[in-house]
Amino acid sequence: MKNAYWVCPLCNFKANVYEKYFWRCPKCGSALRIDYHYEFEPKGYGLNRYASMFPFIPAKTAGEGATPSIVELIAGNEIIFKLEYLNPSGSFKDRGTCLAIHYAHQLGFKKVVEDTSGNTGISVALYARKYNLKATIVMPRYAPYGKKTLIKLLGGEVVETPTRGDASRKVLEYTDMFYVAHIWNPLYIIGASTIAYEVFEQEGVPDYIITPIGSGGLFLGLIEGFEKLYELGVVDKVPTPIGVQGYSVQPVYEELYGKSLKGENSDLADGILVPNPPRKKEIAEKIKRYNGRVVLVGNSDIIRAWKELFEKGYIVEPTSAAPFAGYFKVLDRIGPGKTILIPLTGSGLKTLDIASKLLTSRG
Amino acid sequence: MKNAYWVCPLCNFKANVYEKYFWRCPKCGSALRIDYHYEFEPKGYGLNRYASMFPFIPAKTAGEGATPSIVELIAGNEIIFKLEYLNPSGSFKDRGTCLAIHYAHQLGFKKVVEDTSGNTGISVALYARKYNLKATIVMPRYAPYGKKTLIKLLGGEVVETPTRGDASRKVLEYTDMFYVAHIWNPLYIIGASTIAYEVFEQEGVPDYIITPIGSGGLFLGLIEGFEKLYELGVVDKVPTPIGVQGYSVQPVYEELYGKSLKGENSDLADGILVPNPPRKKEIAEKIKRYNGRVVLVGNSDIIRAWKELFEKGYIVEPTSAAPFAGYFKVLDRIGPGKTILIPLTGSGLKTLDIASKLLTSRG
Repeated sequence: MKNAYWVCPLCNFKANVYEKYFWRCPKCGSALRIDYHYEFEPKGYGLNRYASMFPFIPAKTAGEGATPSIVELIAGNEIIFKLEYLNPSGSFKDRGTCLAIHYAHQLGFKKVVEDTSGNTGISVALYARKYNLKATIVMPRYAPYGKKTLIKLLGGEVVETPTRGDASRKVLEYTDMFYVAHIWNPLYIIGASTIAYEVFEQEGVPDYIITPIGSGGLFLGLIEGFEKLYELGVVDKVPTPIGVQGYSVQPVYEELYGKSLKGENSDLADGILVPNPPRKKEIAEKIKRYNGRVVLVGNSDIIRAWKELFEKGYIVEPTSAAPFAGYFKVLDRIGPGKTILIPLTGSGLKTLDIASKLLTSRG
Repeated sequence: MKNAYWVCPLCNFKANVYEKYFWRCPKCGSALRIDYHYEFEPKGYGLNRYASMFPFIPAKTAGEGATPSIVELIAGNEIIFKLEYLNPSGSFKDRGTCLAIHYAHQLGFKKVVEDTSGNTGISVALYARKYNLKATIVMPRYAPYGKKTLIKLLGGEVVETPTRGDASRKVLEYTDMFYVAHIWNPLYIIGASTIAYEVFEQEGVPDYIITPIGSGGLFLGLIEGFEKLYELGVVDKVPTPIGVQGYSVQPVYEELYGKSLKGENSDLADGILVPNPPRKKEIAEKIKRYNGRVVLVGNSDIIRAWKELFEKGYIVEPTSAAPFAGYFKVLDRIGPGKTILIPLTGSGLKTLDIASKLLTSRG
């Protein structure tokens, strides 16, 4: 077992990673990070190919990671689509959950709890099975029936609340359980970094990365993954990050530019409707450092991009279409001739009903 | 481009593979094979890692192949679950379709047609997009709404017929189109062989393979994949094959044992309800040669195995549960201490409604 420590990015707090601090600094309330030694020594298959970059090695696998990359020339640039929706529970969340549930098991918990409106709940229910833990998923009553069904089939308990906000409050009542808290949990950032390592091995370092930003775990994971490779001397540059948010909820845009932008509703991309991501300052800092930007999209941008993705053979959910919609919004500022990584985050097999209603009528 | 030839396994017919023989010998009507030189030189990612084992190299990829293997100790044996449902269209069919649609494109066709009740149609619609071909999928009216929807979202045309048999007749009317015919098409066997190559690289050679047998493409692909590795001196044994059919439709059982076995309805495993597979004699011959067997399962066996797979975190469709149900039926004859490959063939995200109805009520 490696030495690994909780560290606070804002104050001087530090503690052993196996002490139970649930993601927030006990001194100043900031979202904690994990500090440990790492080296880039890829070996074997799947997520654990990059175990040398982790604070600990997950004992169980559900087949996460090693997703395909497909390169397509679109509007003058080489787009690297990373098919994260082919992870075992249907989203990139599995990369972080694989680490988080191993950690819960190591701490001796028998039960885990998570508040979510979708993919993270399915992912947590799946990995809980692998360690024989009981998963309780607290979600709003209006969450899709298919997602609730899937959690139950995976043996999870679904607790319904009137709203998403109620779910976030309700989850704190389960004090005897391990709280996964993917929005705060730095293991989700470490997990998402493996996407960068795979892209590097499959296609090299792209010029740009375009990602949706909800809690920012995917965004930070990707950029920090490339930063680590840079620090280790494995690559010679860090890609320029472009973050995509919706007009409806634009906290990183506001943090960065000091104002909000009026525009169309963007609630179709439900995976990025996170009003106050704990790490929004860190996200904004990365965008500034690498001269990136945040762009905003609305439902009609998302629908157009979503339809185009289906027509290219990518079976994705609407949140996955947000970064592709964002690409067309920054096209006048980048390229031609650049390579651009766009992760396709979640499976469209879970949202076929919405796709059928919104996309086929426009065919 | 390699030299590759149509050959008939029963008579002396032989022709260049780019002459348009649609899968059947023009002399004797047998299902044709393709003959070509191959070597085992794995290189790169995904299906094309095994391009040296193909008659030609597919120009386009949808991210097929390189699916995870997960090893679990179950009832005394090491089961290697191969997560084929994480292929891009949600089933192992993508491995064959990737080759078949490339071939259609090489022959100069602009349109492809296929009769199917499910997964192959989705796979064909997806790969047709990659080559800008038009896909027409002929399927029975009662096929699941979700599968029809998905084909349309992928830009395919859905033509409905009263029954599955009508679909097989109707498809022959499209004489200007490339007929994919996965049940006859030997490219689906060559595609499925790549599962064997991946398992060999990931986990070595198993003692047994347990597969569902519908048209037999998966069964023949797996066994012939290991046979080719054996002939090339790469491995030192061929696994013993166990084929699984349902009581409702048991042509290979009948071919092998000269009688049928009465039992419960097995229509839940709709992927293996193929009454007269063109290669049933070849399948029976392989089973005899390697001292394997065919076992039969019914709906209650399938439901029990399906529920257990979900509880282990595998999001699969009922046909995928058939080989796992078959495993428990042969347990007294194999093991303990053996390694057994079970491919999990199709995604359960397409059949959540059925799962919800059949599995949660029994929880």
